[in-house]
Amino acid sequence: MSEKYEQLKALLAEVADLNSAAAVLGWDQQVNMPPGGAEARGNAQATLGKIAHIKATSEEVGRLIEDLKAEFAGADPDSDEVRFVKVASRDYDQATKVTPEWVAEFAVVTARAHEAWVEARSKSEFSIFQPHLEKIVELGKQFVAFFPPSDHPYDILLDQFEPGMKTADVRAIFESLRPKQVELLRAIADAPQVDDSFLHLHYPDKQQWDFGVSVITKFGYDWKRGRQDKSPHPFTTSFSINDVRITTRVLEDFLNSALFGTMHECGHALYEMGVNQAYERTPLNGGASLAIHESQSRMWENLVGRSLPFWEHFYPSLQQTFPSQLGNVDLNTFYKGINKVEPSLIRVEADEATYNMHIMLRLEIEIGIVEGSMAVKDLPEIWNTKMKEYLGVVPPDDAQGVLQDIHWSGGMMGYFSTYALGNLVSAQLWEKINADLPDLADQIREGKFDALLGWLREKVHRHGRKYEPQELVQKITGSKIDAAPYVRYLTRKFSDIYGL
Amino acid sequence: MSEKYEQLKALLAEVADLNSAAAVLGWDQQVNMPPGGAEARGNAQATLGKIAHIKATSEEVGRLIEDLKAEFAGADPDSDEVRFVKVASRDYDQATKVTPEWVAEFAVVTARAHEAWVEARSKSEFSIFQPHLEKIVELGKQFVAFFPPSDHPYDILLDQFEPGMKTADVRAIFESLRPKQVELLRAIADAPQVDDSFLHLHYPDKQQWDFGVSVITKFGYDWKRGRQDKSPHPFTTSFSINDVRITTRVLEDFLNSALFGTMHECGHALYEMGVNQAYERTPLNGGASLAIHESQSRMWENLVGRSLPFWEHFYPSLQQTFPSQLGNVDLNTFYKGINKVEPSLIRVEADEATYNMHIMLRLEIEIGIVEGSMAVKDLPEIWNTKMKEYLGVVPPDDAQGVLQDIHWSGGMMGYFSTYALGNLVSAQLWEKINADLPDLADQIREGKFDALLGWLREKVHRHGRKYEPQELVQKITGSKIDAAPYVRYLTRKFSDIYGL
Repeated sequence: MSEKYEQLKALLAEVADLNSAAAVLGWDQQVNMPPGGAEARGNAQATLGKIAHIKATSEEVGRLIEDLKAEFAGADPDSDEVRFVKVASRDYDQATKVTPEWVAEFAVVTARAHEAWVEARSKSEFSIFQPHLEKIVELGKQFVAFFPPSDHPYDILLDQFEPGMKTADVRAIFESLRPKQVELLRAIADAPQVDDSFLHLHYPDKQQWDFGVSVITKFGYDWKRGRQDKSPHPFTTSFSINDVRITTRVLEDFLNSALFGTMHECGHALYEMGVNQAYERTPLNGGASLAIHESQSRMWENLVGRSLPFWEHFYPSLQQTFPSQLGNVDLNTFYKGINKVEPSLIRVEADEATYNMHIMLRLEIEIGIVEGSMAVKDLPEIWNTKMKEYLGVVPPDDAQGVLQDIHWSGGMMGYFSTYALGNLVSAQLWEKINADLPDLADQIREGKFDALLGWLREKVHRHGRKYEPQELVQKITGSKIDAAPYVRYLTRKFSDIYGL
Repeated sequence: MSEKYEQLKALLAEVADLNSAAAVLGWDQQVNMPPGGAEARGNAQATLGKIAHIKATSEEVGRLIEDLKAEFAGADPDSDEVRFVKVASRDYDQATKVTPEWVAEFAVVTARAHEAWVEARSKSEFSIFQPHLEKIVELGKQFVAFFPPSDHPYDILLDQFEPGMKTADVRAIFESLRPKQVELLRAIADAPQVDDSFLHLHYPDKQQWDFGVSVITKFGYDWKRGRQDKSPHPFTTSFSINDVRITTRVLEDFLNSALFGTMHECGHALYEMGVNQAYERTPLNGGASLAIHESQSRMWENLVGRSLPFWEHFYPSLQQTFPSQLGNVDLNTFYKGINKVEPSLIRVEADEATYNMHIMLRLEIEIGIVEGSMAVKDLPEIWNTKMKEYLGVVPPDDAQGVLQDIHWSGGMMGYFSTYALGNLVSAQLWEKINADLPDLADQIREGKFDALLGWLREKVHRHGRKYEPQELVQKITGSKIDAAPYVRYLTRKFSDIYGL
């Protein structure tokens, strides 16, 4: 192997080490840190981030990448080495195109915007947040201008989270999705509602925790290479392919939170744990994109965890765990209850059938403000109009409307669509998996997940960041990201549950 | 303030941040890390260590230190700024005098030596460890040669852990201590033994933990700036003056382990938490030396925690916590039991009266092998002879003799004496504290520790690394480190307990 390749690998391994250290500090901050530690932790993170940035953007790294591109010109474009250089080059461009002044201003603006958002939300006064959001949109436009022109300015923002994905693609996908999903929701609204009151009884913390652990152990979460803790906002973090940790949150008055949250985070973790070990400390480690990541978490949470075969296996043991709460609730009633559809105001509380509507609304707004067809000051009205149109509900105030999400206050524009794309990809993969493993439902009914996990490892996990998301989905399913499988999935599932 | 001073401060703040990050990674490794994370953690720590070393030893840091020494030539030698530069200069010298080749060889040799030591101890065969220890002694001599000649070669080794301390000083201190301590031990051996069988009953984990927490909360451990976890080897670590964490180990068949271990680590933590907040992210943060640190941990563990006034306050609640185990054990019996003296083979299990004998033996051996008057191959025999002479017991094998401690296998020569010096300093400070706070025993009897903690903060903690250990002790007590107060303390305490 080329000497320059080894040099680049060594330099980027140090960057990976620094990012791994920063991830440990971040995990500790959310899971363990006493309040007194906050200021020092901020300083340590800033120093780690600064050094990692300097190392990742050094001239030496840039020169090695250019030299290796020339050196590898005739090599197999799908080899790990060529892909390593391609991904490294992409990361290098992202990190070097933006000026240090912009980065510094972005940090200051978003810090202030976050404070303003907290206040605005607590008072439900959009005007407090508005000037900050305008500044963030302005910075977003400046960010776009650092890169070569694309078909649409929003492409540049999207590309940070979904490498290679175009605004036109996402729009086309969502255009095909929206009418079908609206139609389904109208049909559900006209059907008799299912009962889920039994999910809101008292469920003691420890039994919820233990049940979640027993489920993800069967999924294949490797406790020798990870652990679970509690945190207010559940998340997955990876310090290495062999140290991938998850957190969960247990609500004693709502069974769903820990139950499905634990499966969701486990889905993320299985992805990170399944990356080719040879990619450790290289740019090829990690997930292909946020949408592909979300496809994994949503698959284990919903396509597996909210399915009837799954509960045919697990429900007896859940009933044994909570006899007084669920002893008189039969399997079918339970299955319907955990899948109850109800248009609601808050994205993070949305069910499978309504979730994507929340995302489409946000995507349209983001595109609108980036291309200038919408003004920030009009967002509360636009938000409420679209909520009425898509979900049939109107927020009583902005706190439950346009101010509900943290993302924009942190400057994250282009992020939301990945949540919906993840749902679509999960169903697209699921059709292919079921074609390849025709007895999958029976396996799940027996509590067996090793064939499913093996398939995901082979087709998705092991590749890490080697392929761009559209490329990966095409490689596995034969077509790019497509809404049709998800529409089929939702329609079949909820027609059954609601007797449509 | 000088611009160069601000520059140096900014550079060393980054070094402090990197060390803080490394400390978080180290804590996580011992408290939380799943086994799979070990390799990645080793890489991340190596990268952090390497970058911190490069930054701490940069020419720019060296130049600024020299410039500032000149600039501050006429300034108050006790000002924080002058002391900052002095300590920074000392750290810089320590870090730059040694060649990178030596550092690399030391890492390799000690890694192999550690493995050999583990095997040697498990088989109780000194010959397996001997060639490795010889190599380590050789490296120790090379280390000494990097520095300007001192009165004794061992000074250089000692100076790493006890800045400014001389071999001649330590020897003189221990010469005055040894005969008195041997005499006391002989008298105790002739007296009837006390009973401590009740300490070895079954004490459930949770109650032990909770009792320890209630004690150190009264000591003044600040839970907003720290936390306690479990680990196989208890330790204290600091990521910041405002994030100082301790660990403990609970043995259900021996009450002393968690009880006194928790107080011991709390003593270390109170020191780190009490450093002047202005020293955060500077070389002045931390403890003055290992001996001063140990004086704090041993004071809370022994002078406070193994005293009669302490148990006059806490024993009723301990009895309530463990009624079946201690309900019929009266205060005086309990007090004698926790202070039982019994010459033993293993240092870490030694009581207050015998502990220093274990240290003196090790110090004499370290000095002997560094100056060449003892050969490594003769150590088992030398060890056993001295054990017989000092403690009246002879190890049945080398595992319980010369092979018992991990320190030498890690290349730590010059470290052991700090344990005994810490004991001496604790008693020396204690005499001064009692002179300044004449009702201290009564306060402790009422469970009040704020005047004691306030005194320690004012006299010891807030100064951090500003003063060298001998200088600090002199400043507080009017004399350098002295064995007499400790001898007085031991004699009084054990004469009472054993009716001598």
